[in-house]
Amino acid sequence: MQTLFEQEPIQQKTIRHLGDSLDAGLFLHVRQSLVLMSAEDIGHILESMPHRQRTLLWGLIPEKRQGEILNHVADEVRTIFLSQMQPSQVAAAVMGQDADDLADILGDLPNHLYHQVLASMDEQDRQRVAEVLNYPEDSAGGIMNTDTVTVRPAVEVDVVLRYLRLRGKLPRNTDLLYVVDRNDHLLGQISLAKLVTSAPMVLVADVMTEAAAIPANLPDSEVSQLFQRYDWVSAPVVNEQNQLLGRITIDDVVDVIIEDADQSLMNMAGLDEDEDIFSPAHKSAPKRAFWLGINLLTALLAASVSSYFEETFKQLATVAVLMTIVPSMGGIAGNQTQTLIVRGIALGHIGGSNARWLLGKETLVGLFNGLLWSSVIALAVFLWKGNWLLGAIIGAAMTINMLVAGVAGASIPLLLRKFGIDPAVAGGVVVTTITDVIGLFTFLGLATYFLIP
Amino acid sequence: MQTLFEQEPIQQKTIRHLGDSLDAGLFLHVRQSLVLMSAEDIGHILESMPHRQRTLLWGLIPEKRQGEILNHVADEVRTIFLSQMQPSQVAAAVMGQDADDLADILGDLPNHLYHQVLASMDEQDRQRVAEVLNYPEDSAGGIMNTDTVTVRPAVEVDVVLRYLRLRGKLPRNTDLLYVVDRNDHLLGQISLAKLVTSAPMVLVADVMTEAAAIPANLPDSEVSQLFQRYDWVSAPVVNEQNQLLGRITIDDVVDVIIEDADQSLMNMAGLDEDEDIFSPAHKSAPKRAFWLGINLLTALLAASVSSYFEETFKQLATVAVLMTIVPSMGGIAGNQTQTLIVRGIALGHIGGSNARWLLGKETLVGLFNGLLWSSVIALAVFLWKGNWLLGAIIGAAMTINMLVAGVAGASIPLLLRKFGIDPAVAGGVVVTTITDVIGLFTFLGLATYFLIP
Repeated sequence: MQTLFEQEPIQQKTIRHLGDSLDAGLFLHVRQSLVLMSAEDIGHILESMPHRQRTLLWGLIPEKRQGEILNHVADEVRTIFLSQMQPSQVAAAVMGQDADDLADILGDLPNHLYHQVLASMDEQDRQRVAEVLNYPEDSAGGIMNTDTVTVRPAVEVDVVLRYLRLRGKLPRNTDLLYVVDRNDHLLGQISLAKLVTSAPMVLVADVMTEAAAIPANLPDSEVSQLFQRYDWVSAPVVNEQNQLLGRITIDDVVDVIIEDADQSLMNMAGLDEDEDIFSPAHKSAPKRAFWLGINLLTALLAASVSSYFEETFKQLATVAVLMTIVPSMGGIAGNQTQTLIVRGIALGHIGGSNARWLLGKETLVGLFNGLLWSSVIALAVFLWKGNWLLGAIIGAAMTINMLVAGVAGASIPLLLRKFGIDPAVAGGVVVTTITDVIGLFTFLGLATYFLIP
Repeated sequence: MQTLFEQEPIQQKTIRHLGDSLDAGLFLHVRQSLVLMSAEDIGHILESMPHRQRTLLWGLIPEKRQGEILNHVADEVRTIFLSQMQPSQVAAAVMGQDADDLADILGDLPNHLYHQVLASMDEQDRQRVAEVLNYPEDSAGGIMNTDTVTVRPAVEVDVVLRYLRLRGKLPRNTDLLYVVDRNDHLLGQISLAKLVTSAPMVLVADVMTEAAAIPANLPDSEVSQLFQRYDWVSAPVVNEQNQLLGRITIDDVVDVIIEDADQSLMNMAGLDEDEDIFSPAHKSAPKRAFWLGINLLTALLAASVSSYFEETFKQLATVAVLMTIVPSMGGIAGNQTQTLIVRGIALGHIGGSNARWLLGKETLVGLFNGLLWSSVIALAVFLWKGNWLLGAIIGAAMTINMLVAGVAGASIPLLLRKFGIDPAVAGGVVVTTITDVIGLFTFLGLATYFLIP
């Protein structure tokens, strides 16, 4: 009981202590510390260590614990470990694991290893995993487990209880028994809570409830929305004939939720969602280079817009000084709108029915804030440079650009989604490019027209 | 069974159809459609509607269903509905709900309403909610429920089963019974799965397992990390004397996970994490104005840096044309690093032990990508403007600025956290200001020094 009270504050201390011991070569000591730790804790520690220490620590973990620990580290960390193992080691490590975890691990392997590992697995594991491998990794079938407990409708509650006692241990996170006919068609479900509170002589058919069956090909993000909306702990997965294939448990759904959230956050910053913060610099740098390259292109595009106005800069250098303000505000406003829309899409709140309303609303928001901050900047520029016309020009340009930011921020993500492009990945750069170009062009154009003789 | 197959594709259609019916004033028809829908679905529909339709729909929901539906809408939407209800209506709507949901709803009420609602509640509800209100909303105590099922260690499994049958329905998501002594000290736990697979004559004390008790004052983000790490469905909450206060269930933890993820995403874009995408423009605009104002200040700061170089722009307008490229690349690189660090902090991966290593790594990443894209921009500027010295200058400035971006992106979030400031909120603007100022100053300074006679 006391473990948790003591454990939390020392978590980071433990990691530091283990890291120091690894650096000092006290391998025996580290090995002894690991014995008492759970697979979850070791996974967390591995994820929190720089590459070199991580590899050392992994080497000290007994082979028979490696498989379980593999399930508690991020995909990218796992891939590194797997690539250093022999096929037979991988097969031994993953023996007897949940089918969805097995499928995940196999999916991370390079092609030649994949077949070798599959060949070294025992028949039972191979069959279990084959069912899951039939479906894409990001579908209900890909995250399901095949370890369902099924009962028939015509038996009594008491019989079910005796059967369960004979059967012994239930699979992890079992909250529901599934009621199926002899051809595995799903008829209903009965919760353990219902089972233990029902009279012994009642028939299963009389206490079972309708099962909310998930089709195996449903995308995992929709599965996670269903779990969130209905507060499920587990749910059955069926094929098109309504035959029970397996079940999805909340812990796997939580992983999907976190992955999806991370993905939005990371992609909007131009990062690979699998990027491991502790991978060495020479591996991280190339992953981020692409996004920087795209940004360099858009920055050059913006520069090519302003290069039309070199004559203006020569005559009125103040215009050059002020030219970054309008695009910058447009970029921020566009990003706010875009983030809100991307999130609304992810939550399933946005569809044909309200998209037009949203576009109108965001345009209005852009206009309101455009007018507000345009007045402020117009006044500031007038006070700073003593030129009221220049103030009016920058104010007008800012209003226009923030209006554009509202329209682009709302419509670009929706358009991208229509074309099947992830708005979190591509939306930001498209919206920023638009606000940069329009912002520069409006401000420099107006300034040149009105101020340059 | 078939409901799910049919339901998913028509979700958005349903919302549109209801919206059209509301606009057309077909209230009787809408009311009839609502009868067949679950509270979860109605909550989702309310969240997906513009303000006006939402208010109309809410008015058509029978009072006795309103309380349950309130639990399935976002906080901000709920606040709007609550503000339109009478204290007695609120009390009636929330009667009999989970203690944590009750506490949440009470917490959303303005102070005078709060006391009126509390006074109109029945004694039992008031007592349950009082326990939860003792703790902050974002602590284990604040998200716990008080509906635990407890048993004594010295009874047999069979007795427990008979007790449960007498008791009837178990609380939602009950997967564990808690074993307590007569003073409510938590001794252990027994899962329903274990209960139904144990022999009837075995003592609870012999089959119970150690309970991972959560202290009531643990922050909810740490609770969610524990649930994620150990794949729990529920966990007991205890006070400092190890007395059982309640339990936390996974559905409430999922809400915490989503809230935390949303918060990072929204805050990094300068949005209020509670912003409701369907609130009207005149309510959204002021919420976003603050962030835009902060950004205007930083843009003015950058402009004031470049205003030192007006003479340079007059003599060599090309410098003005190119000056946005270096700050832009620094901003993107800084944002990449910053996002990664903020996420690492949120996942609990970053502490004193590895912070220095990370700083070194991110500096190296900045240097690598700085050198790569500096070469590209140097070549591009040479080809575009035919000036090799200008190319070398912009390349040098970009390398320096991206190095700075790596250092600032890694250290600013860690520093902010040390001072108790949320790095997701403040990190972006601090890092961008640094890369803007350094980028402009380096490029314009070098250009002025080497190119202006």
